[in-house]
Amino acid sequence: MTYPDIPLAQTIVHLCKAKGIQHIVISPGSRNAPLTIGFTSDPYFSTYSIVDERSAAFFAMGMAMQQKQPVVVVCTSGSALLNYYPAVSEAFYSDVPLVVISADRPPYRIDIGDGQTIRQDNIFERHILYTANLKQDLREDHNPLHRDQDSIPPAMELAKNDATLQKGVQQYNETEINNALNTAIEDSGPVHLNAPFEEPLYNRTEAMSVSPKNIAISPVTQIISEEEITTLQKLWNGAARKIVMVGVLQPNTLEQKLLDRLVTDDSVVLLTETTSNLHQNRAFPFIDKLIAPLEKMEDATLLWQKLQPEILLTFGGMVVSKKVKAFLRKYQPKHHWHVDPKKAYDTYFCLERHIKTDINTFLKRFVNGTIPVANGYFPYWEGIRKNRTLGHLEYMKQIPFCDFKVYEHVLKKIPDGTNLQLSNSSTIRYAQLFQLNSSLKVFCNRGTSGIDGSTSTAVGAAFHDENATVMVTGDLSFFYDSNALWNNYLRKDFRIIVINNGGGGIFRILPGDKNSEAFNTYFETTHELNARGLCDTFGLRYIFAENEEELIHALDSFYEDTESPGLLEVFTPRTVNDEVLLKYFRFLAEWNGGGSL
Amino acid sequence: MTYPDIPLAQTIVHLCKAKGIQHIVISPGSRNAPLTIGFTSDPYFSTYSIVDERSAAFFAMGMAMQQKQPVVVVCTSGSALLNYYPAVSEAFYSDVPLVVISADRPPYRIDIGDGQTIRQDNIFERHILYTANLKQDLREDHNPLHRDQDSIPPAMELAKNDATLQKGVQQYNETEINNALNTAIEDSGPVHLNAPFEEPLYNRTEAMSVSPKNIAISPVTQIISEEEITTLQKLWNGAARKIVMVGVLQPNTLEQKLLDRLVTDDSVVLLTETTSNLHQNRAFPFIDKLIAPLEKMEDATLLWQKLQPEILLTFGGMVVSKKVKAFLRKYQPKHHWHVDPKKAYDTYFCLERHIKTDINTFLKRFVNGTIPVANGYFPYWEGIRKNRTLGHLEYMKQIPFCDFKVYEHVLKKIPDGTNLQLSNSSTIRYAQLFQLNSSLKVFCNRGTSGIDGSTSTAVGAAFHDENATVMVTGDLSFFYDSNALWNNYLRKDFRIIVINNGGGGIFRILPGDKNSEAFNTYFETTHELNARGLCDTFGLRYIFAENEEELIHALDSFYEDTESPGLLEVFTPRTVNDEVLLKYFRFLAEWNGGGSL
Repeated sequence: MTYPDIPLAQTIVHLCKAKGIQHIVISPGSRNAPLTIGFTSDPYFSTYSIVDERSAAFFAMGMAMQQKQPVVVVCTSGSALLNYYPAVSEAFYSDVPLVVISADRPPYRIDIGDGQTIRQDNIFERHILYTANLKQDLREDHNPLHRDQDSIPPAMELAKNDATLQKGVQQYNETEINNALNTAIEDSGPVHLNAPFEEPLYNRTEAMSVSPKNIAISPVTQIISEEEITTLQKLWNGAARKIVMVGVLQPNTLEQKLLDRLVTDDSVVLLTETTSNLHQNRAFPFIDKLIAPLEKMEDATLLWQKLQPEILLTFGGMVVSKKVKAFLRKYQPKHHWHVDPKKAYDTYFCLERHIKTDINTFLKRFVNGTIPVANGYFPYWEGIRKNRTLGHLEYMKQIPFCDFKVYEHVLKKIPDGTNLQLSNSSTIRYAQLFQLNSSLKVFCNRGTSGIDGSTSTAVGAAFHDENATVMVTGDLSFFYDSNALWNNYLRKDFRIIVINNGGGGIFRILPGDKNSEAFNTYFETTHELNARGLCDTFGLRYIFAENEEELIHALDSFYEDTESPGLLEVFTPRTVNDEVLLKYFRFLAEWNGGGSL
Repeated sequence: MTYPDIPLAQTIVHLCKAKGIQHIVISPGSRNAPLTIGFTSDPYFSTYSIVDERSAAFFAMGMAMQQKQPVVVVCTSGSALLNYYPAVSEAFYSDVPLVVISADRPPYRIDIGDGQTIRQDNIFERHILYTANLKQDLREDHNPLHRDQDSIPPAMELAKNDATLQKGVQQYNETEINNALNTAIEDSGPVHLNAPFEEPLYNRTEAMSVSPKNIAISPVTQIISEEEITTLQKLWNGAARKIVMVGVLQPNTLEQKLLDRLVTDDSVVLLTETTSNLHQNRAFPFIDKLIAPLEKMEDATLLWQKLQPEILLTFGGMVVSKKVKAFLRKYQPKHHWHVDPKKAYDTYFCLERHIKTDINTFLKRFVNGTIPVANGYFPYWEGIRKNRTLGHLEYMKQIPFCDFKVYEHVLKKIPDGTNLQLSNSSTIRYAQLFQLNSSLKVFCNRGTSGIDGSTSTAVGAAFHDENATVMVTGDLSFFYDSNALWNNYLRKDFRIIVINNGGGGIFRILPGDKNSEAFNTYFETTHELNARGLCDTFGLRYIFAENEEELIHALDSFYEDTESPGLLEVFTPRTVNDEVLLKYFRFLAEWNGGGSL
């Protein structure tokens, strides 16, 4: 076997393997050569080459999220590392184990005018679970040809001959690497290893010169006391109105029978989102559709109060719906409990308890003592839900070809069992208005809700999954992250649907003058681009549709087996979308076709 | 006139104008609406819309560098801001006044699960001259329709009615904004203003509600004592071998007659780089060509010692040549002095004095007392230089069509007076091997030497200059920053030349096995892409050349007036470039056509 001859590089590669980290996304560079040599020489690793570090990090994050295991990104020194930051912050807020490994110059080469050199240690300080600022090896290099071209300061020369010092460095590095990798695995979030390498960088060796120790993770088990469970059950059973609300959740996270048991209760309303990946026949899977029409009513205070819960129990990550946040901030529950092993955000300014444990573990104990309360809470809102569903169908019949209409067709035609990746922010918001096929698994970068890496995330997530992946995105998000297509890892069953309304259509929903040039340029950012040239460049099959008929026709064959990935671009009229959407909520508020409000 | 109704936004816009900051690059968003409204409503400002924040920041940096004045970039909250970081670090190391203004949510909305929200304050801490962490306004909003949908915590409600508190906030913000903008102007580097805005964001007003005070800059004049000048002159006059070396320098920085006076002296050797923008007939403008062949000689120690200076006087920013750095680190001068009003890097590990003043101010006083020393130092190296020049011409005749050959043709044909933008890192290194037309002004992002924003920088730099701009770049740099083409600010006389050798050719120069798949994929990053699709997408005229004849023909008409910007792609054979370049230095070392070595 071949190894890089630098002990620090050997140690990093060895410990990644020891901990079962298998996928390594590498961006080209020279300073990171020892790591590239190490990772690509051991067939244990699956390695990927992606040039643009911003895209590489989102790709890795997507893969980590989908595979539910840490994925490594490796880059050279300098500003390369900074391009990882958008994905690092997304991983931080979405709890994805992204392991960043950056090569660096030794500290004495920083801020002396050398190229590709910045202050890399602790660079992600605000959005990282752990930073290992590793130390350079102090090796004696016997081969003069291998020596760095530049002279090394005398103090370093001395240190190189000090075996004790070198042993100390090795020990420090092993501990730090173990800490960082263990944190990524156990706490499921981004970590950063910064590794300074002295030249020469390209030397190989046939045997390891160090034997790094793998420090095992000692998982901390959070135990909720019997007393606490009893207290919670008592409060729960005594409350007439309870909302269970679920944010972003990986598919198959919750045990279905526990969920069923919890919510089969007329005093409980279950609110889910598209990104919750939960399906239950009592769920309200389109919160905005439930709530937004209430805002349009002249005096909805009574209705708001009727919906206001006494207890709010939440699981999962970020909540997309702004409307449910506004509602629960105004009509706060008496008790808000959040269940998560790691963190609990005080999203509604009234968090009472962070139940620090795994959701299934909690529910298993909790539901054993819950007693359904027979009252009108669920039935009342269920009536409204049915009404909304009928109103929705009626409205969809009336509207012209526009974004909303396109989403209806697109979402309906996605094949069973597909992974559905949605971009920010129109796309996810539109998707929330439909009842999706329950066999789909839905993903969206909601940690920071950025448009900077949705496509790269989707490409990475798709690569190893047993099912095919469809990415649905808007034009600005698509062009922003077009480098997502610049790699060799687009599966031939990967599909992208770009809904191109000629700008950032979501801004048209916001208040302000829609017809000024300033609005068009600086908010809506209108353009006349299309995706054909990018498809030609990166080898995707390109088709497009400009009206409903063409769209239906295009969708008919879009998912057939092909030799290359495909992109469908749907052009919609720029200026009708905001009106259609705003009228929708008014229509639902006024519609009474199905009986009671 | 129209203003945003938020006092903090009014204050920022007002103070930018008061300080003469005119160019504002805006990326679309909602949270930054108050700033967008403010900047676009006042015709004093020239505003630009660029969606990808990474590209927007490099565009702004290029404009700031070329215009020698601060340029503002404005973005919304969340990961948008992180995409500025590569350009911020380049501006930090290249001393460019880039003013970053980010909209933020109020602090009580951070880390509670709201979308597009990260920890923005102090985010660029390691690479910024000043961060103004501004405070949100505590306004009483009389219009209930304007109220934030979400409830505001009770403490905030109280504070809104406290006029004294609001006055304190306004005062704090004014001082911080003044500090930040004054720092950008005076110290010529990046600064960050983080501005938290509470909803509503889109309201306008016809009159300012605050009258922000513009605190003038009080420039600090660095005065070098007469005694110090005399000491330096004495050392200078007593030294037999002096090197004056110049790094990155803006065109027309140095007064020519001062430079002429300094180096018209046989004991002085002037080393310049392509990026020095200095022209003097005694200069050695291709350091690598002078030095690299010495490395190939069997025993060059004597020659190295003959070149070793007693005094090294340096000006300007980063030095590109690794070889001169290696030489001066090994054969250190007794005295290294660096002249710069702000900073001095200890690039050769022997910096003795930082002469903290403007270069012309220093030289004006210094050269008055310098006395030329008649010796053989300059003449000896001048002989070698002439020899190298002839050897170079001879070698160029012998080589096949390859990158090196292409650079010869390309650089020769750039029209007089053009701004030449070079990307990292092959491009700048190849360019350094030629004697360029002295009417060109040369630029390259050497602060961090990244490939992440070269094209965007060039597009921004080009936009307002009186002369046309040509960007010469490699394929990886070009594809990396292809979003540089995604805006409406490409001048029709803007030209791009992509030298496409099918991968990161520079990596072939490095040691290691060149024929393995791992090398091709992870170091060289080979590909078969071309730039045609991107040109089609973004409206550039596209031409290409695949051999010398086609290249000559293409260059003949490439700079003619056209209605749209143009791109010339030159395809070179991937595998001969490294050999041609390595042989070049050997050839120069052995060549003796012009007489003495």
